[in-house]
Amino acid sequence: MSKEVIKEIELNQVKIADEFWSKRQTLITDTVIPYQERILDDQVEGVEKSHAFANFRIAAGLEDGEFYGMVFQDSDVAKWLEAVAYSLSIKPNVDLENRADEIIEIIAKAQQPDGYLNTYFTIKEPDKRWTNLHACHELYCAGHMMEAAAAYFKVTGKDQLLSVMERMSGHIEKHFITAQREGIPGHQEIEIGLMKMYHATGKEKFFNLAKHFIDERGNNPDYFLREDQNRGWKHDIMDPRNTKYNQSFAPVREQKTAEGHSVRAVYMYTAMADIASVNNDKELYEACKAVWNNIVSKRMYITGGIGSNVEGEAFTIDYDLPNDSAYTETCASIGLIFFAKRMLDIHPSNKYADIMELALYNGVLSGMQLDGKRFFYCNPLEVNPEISGKLFGYKHVLPERPGWYQCACCPPNVARLLTSLGQYIWSESVDTIYSHLYIGGTSKLELATITLASQYPWKGDITYTINSSGTKSEFTLAIRIPSYVKEFKILLNHLEYSERLDIRDGYCYIHQNWGEGDTVQLLFDMPVRRMHTNTLVRNNIGCVALMRGPIVYCFEGNDNGNNIQELHVKRDEKIIIGNYDPELLGGIVPLKMKGIRIYANDGLYFEEDFSKKEEMLTAIPYYAWGNRGLTQMRVWMHED
Amino acid sequence: MSKEVIKEIELNQVKIADEFWSKRQTLITDTVIPYQERILDDQVEGVEKSHAFANFRIAAGLEDGEFYGMVFQDSDVAKWLEAVAYSLSIKPNVDLENRADEIIEIIAKAQQPDGYLNTYFTIKEPDKRWTNLHACHELYCAGHMMEAAAAYFKVTGKDQLLSVMERMSGHIEKHFITAQREGIPGHQEIEIGLMKMYHATGKEKFFNLAKHFIDERGNNPDYFLREDQNRGWKHDIMDPRNTKYNQSFAPVREQKTAEGHSVRAVYMYTAMADIASVNNDKELYEACKAVWNNIVSKRMYITGGIGSNVEGEAFTIDYDLPNDSAYTETCASIGLIFFAKRMLDIHPSNKYADIMELALYNGVLSGMQLDGKRFFYCNPLEVNPEISGKLFGYKHVLPERPGWYQCACCPPNVARLLTSLGQYIWSESVDTIYSHLYIGGTSKLELATITLASQYPWKGDITYTINSSGTKSEFTLAIRIPSYVKEFKILLNHLEYSERLDIRDGYCYIHQNWGEGDTVQLLFDMPVRRMHTNTLVRNNIGCVALMRGPIVYCFEGNDNGNNIQELHVKRDEKIIIGNYDPELLGGIVPLKMKGIRIYANDGLYFEEDFSKKEEMLTAIPYYAWGNRGLTQMRVWMHED
Repeated sequence: MSKEVIKEIELNQVKIADEFWSKRQTLITDTVIPYQERILDDQVEGVEKSHAFANFRIAAGLEDGEFYGMVFQDSDVAKWLEAVAYSLSIKPNVDLENRADEIIEIIAKAQQPDGYLNTYFTIKEPDKRWTNLHACHELYCAGHMMEAAAAYFKVTGKDQLLSVMERMSGHIEKHFITAQREGIPGHQEIEIGLMKMYHATGKEKFFNLAKHFIDERGNNPDYFLREDQNRGWKHDIMDPRNTKYNQSFAPVREQKTAEGHSVRAVYMYTAMADIASVNNDKELYEACKAVWNNIVSKRMYITGGIGSNVEGEAFTIDYDLPNDSAYTETCASIGLIFFAKRMLDIHPSNKYADIMELALYNGVLSGMQLDGKRFFYCNPLEVNPEISGKLFGYKHVLPERPGWYQCACCPPNVARLLTSLGQYIWSESVDTIYSHLYIGGTSKLELATITLASQYPWKGDITYTINSSGTKSEFTLAIRIPSYVKEFKILLNHLEYSERLDIRDGYCYIHQNWGEGDTVQLLFDMPVRRMHTNTLVRNNIGCVALMRGPIVYCFEGNDNGNNIQELHVKRDEKIIIGNYDPELLGGIVPLKMKGIRIYANDGLYFEEDFSKKEEMLTAIPYYAWGNRGLTQMRVWMHED
Repeated sequence: MSKEVIKEIELNQVKIADEFWSKRQTLITDTVIPYQERILDDQVEGVEKSHAFANFRIAAGLEDGEFYGMVFQDSDVAKWLEAVAYSLSIKPNVDLENRADEIIEIIAKAQQPDGYLNTYFTIKEPDKRWTNLHACHELYCAGHMMEAAAAYFKVTGKDQLLSVMERMSGHIEKHFITAQREGIPGHQEIEIGLMKMYHATGKEKFFNLAKHFIDERGNNPDYFLREDQNRGWKHDIMDPRNTKYNQSFAPVREQKTAEGHSVRAVYMYTAMADIASVNNDKELYEACKAVWNNIVSKRMYITGGIGSNVEGEAFTIDYDLPNDSAYTETCASIGLIFFAKRMLDIHPSNKYADIMELALYNGVLSGMQLDGKRFFYCNPLEVNPEISGKLFGYKHVLPERPGWYQCACCPPNVARLLTSLGQYIWSESVDTIYSHLYIGGTSKLELATITLASQYPWKGDITYTINSSGTKSEFTLAIRIPSYVKEFKILLNHLEYSERLDIRDGYCYIHQNWGEGDTVQLLFDMPVRRMHTNTLVRNNIGCVALMRGPIVYCFEGNDNGNNIQELHVKRDEKIIIGNYDPELLGGIVPLKMKGIRIYANDGLYFEEDFSKKEEMLTAIPYYAWGNRGLTQMRVWMHED
């Protein structure tokens, strides 16, 4: 493990001003958050009813009615509140903050005298609390509300929700630890929530409770089965014998492969890495490295999507990565980003930062329509409108983003990630500033106030300007060099940095006595990369995917006509990098190339040769697919 | 429609003596039928319990007990009895015939005084008869028993079962027609059964009842929904609103595409073609041609497998033919053979006979293990043992044949088809003998007794010898020329047949005044054919399948090592046709070729080129796959 202490950056230290991301953050603050607020308050017609605010009002005794929604409906409110907190750091909004305060007030009233907070059980089955950890998600909801509490406290300084969740944490501690009751969450998340409260307050009790749940997990793989047999009532979809599903098949320190429900998995790995870092727990860190390596080298799509199978929304086996039936939940890619960031803060390496970036620009961003109004839960790498969303095996793979989901975990998850993006750009240790993501803006770090300017992801030209020094003027700026970059140049105050470059694990360490106005420029070419897949992945044999910088490209029927499976990218034909078009799909750089359409004129099976014709092909960024109506889409194209 | 009347050949006219088929018929008569008898009588350990004979004994009042099994368990007995009947024509067996007589005696006792016969309803729910045609399969079971009755009568001359089923037919007629009750079978089959009884007896009432059910179908697409709403009890798996599932979405004469459950569909088309032929019903015949063309040109695997999706065991949409999740039920390919034969007897054309042959040598034969003891329900074109039968989307695709199934429709269906193979080889009109399949043996037709000798499917050398003339000495021998044959020669008494060949619809018509001992020889080369698929089938782009004669080849891991998805068949490399090896997989001609393994050394996604090495590849007939333990299998190989 790293000897240095690397700190996460607080959101209020970072002001993002970036051509690519600022408009997306504005979309979240101005469109997505208000829209989701109206949905949570049941004010939007024609989408799945939420009832999430109403559940809290009913539990608070402010309104009559029945609980409605998923057993974990509370978490939608939590994720929204967390996003609101982050959004206030981007763009202060007194009205929104007032409304959030009101909702926190209601949440406080919904809390029971003993500290318990969960509207489903409070309204519907108060006598059944804590009897179905497997499926009823009380700890999961608590975890999300803890994340919201920590975020709201950090951004606004207000501690009402934090106090609520501290009482809830106390209740949980009493129930499980003081009373020595067995129990682990069916869906991991509280571990992250507790760690966020720990980081926000420094109170060890939160850390200890988080560590308790991590340590307990998998010690008794038959725990959920016993729980099931003892409780005598059901709320399960998943068989409690399926211990891989929720990663309870073995103690977490013994887990070497990423198994089961992918969101549960990466949420757990995130907490594991965080705890390992705080506690200097080498065994836990080794487990994190093992599952990380398993994911990125054998179980991840090129888009940073994870969880290939709809059954259990789960990891399956090494190299099982079908494109047209991929589950690849938006939340899972978000969780992979969480995990990557925790690993990065233990040991800065582009092996983590590159994947964090990949998931962000592709598998996560594809989850949201460009107008911020519709969301994907699944992010497949191939869509055929007559099959996707319709036939068995493909019903989960919707070819267009719906407005809202009954299980609405993904939309608010995107909102909270994009509003907290400021936390992912930098890290800082006592003498080093780490630059992970090339997202423009000005950040007031401890060592310096620094401005980053770039046209990333469209151009490999990143400029850092030291606006003013902080705690010391002599420090190191460690800049990530993406593993896709083959050659780069560093300019220091416009002159090529001639010293022998100190590159370790994909970060270029530049040690200087910095003066105000000093600039560092990172320059690299951004050619189109023709990506291939390990041949152990059956589905991509003979296929190529195009990437440029961190962006994975895809081909849509809108640009390329019908039956895009017939199109072949020519191996030796130049791929033309289009000009940045601010009008197209919210501003993209398209790719153009001569390709070959290989097609049959007639018949189903035949010996005759195919017909061929040259066609101009257009590729667009994967994240922008599905924004122009029902159409076919492929990431992996046949190669000629 | 054809102006001439073409008759089906009776089984007792044909004596098969054929290197390829005789041993398979012996397997059925000596192994499969006795084995299935023991299973139906619950004497085999370690397989799914059948209880099918016991159900009849209980219904007959000969034994106490409860009904057990699928609601259509009776049909297993029927199909077995039908196979027994055919087997007795191949190989007389007094003991077996006595036991069959005993079972028929029990069936007769199980028949109710009003003619009703069905052990499920008789034992379990006597008051619910005929109230759930959608799912309870009374008409389906009756249809199979009618087929058995007709077969047993034709082969043995005994009419006890025929009388039983005539009474059942009378009961059905009274219930539906006399009493003017609405109703159509949920699973078509009785139409075939009634037509078989009609052909066996000439009694018009059977034809009329068959035609009634065909004419009624689809007139009221909401029939099953109303039935469901009226009955107040459930036995359904399928939503009665899914009218495509059982082809009740439109009057049969208006159906243009093959929809829904593939076995139901082809059983219905078989009866439609039969009725069209008897009644000279042009509209019905046009519907048959339309669905035939839709199947073979857009919805059929290269193996003659049909029904690509497990949900509903159904046809889906044009060109949706995934290999690794193919449903392709053995029974569906058998039904396709039934349908083909009926179409062939209306209008002799190799477009029907070639498909009949294709399904027989591939999609049907693959259903049975070489030892006759295990059976496939699904016949996929790609199997990956770590995924097939295990992961969601692939659970139905078993990588090895199980011993018996809870729903045991396929094994006895194979048995009855292979024992009745004699009916598919020839047809005869007043002045023409049609030779459809090159299956060796001697057949006593009306125009002549004729011997066919060949080493088909391994060699294109077919010899016909006229042993003696029949009703007239001047007649036409019409020999099918498979559409895959590019050049052929006909020798008449060892001399090249020099007259201008009269070829119509893939049949070569040879008109002669025949003398005893006259021979006709059909000679053609049998090169390996590199087959490609229409590019509208997404799954086979860049892939090749090998065929030789009617045999589709596949590649197994046993012969070709691990990860056969990495293997590429070279486009310009000669494919070596191996010698016939009588010891290998029951006697096959393997194919050998130099191929290329294209593989990755490391990493999941990369820009680097792949490694390549030459490897010798071996292909075996598809029907023989899965006989050497768990291994990977592919029909469609990547082509280099």
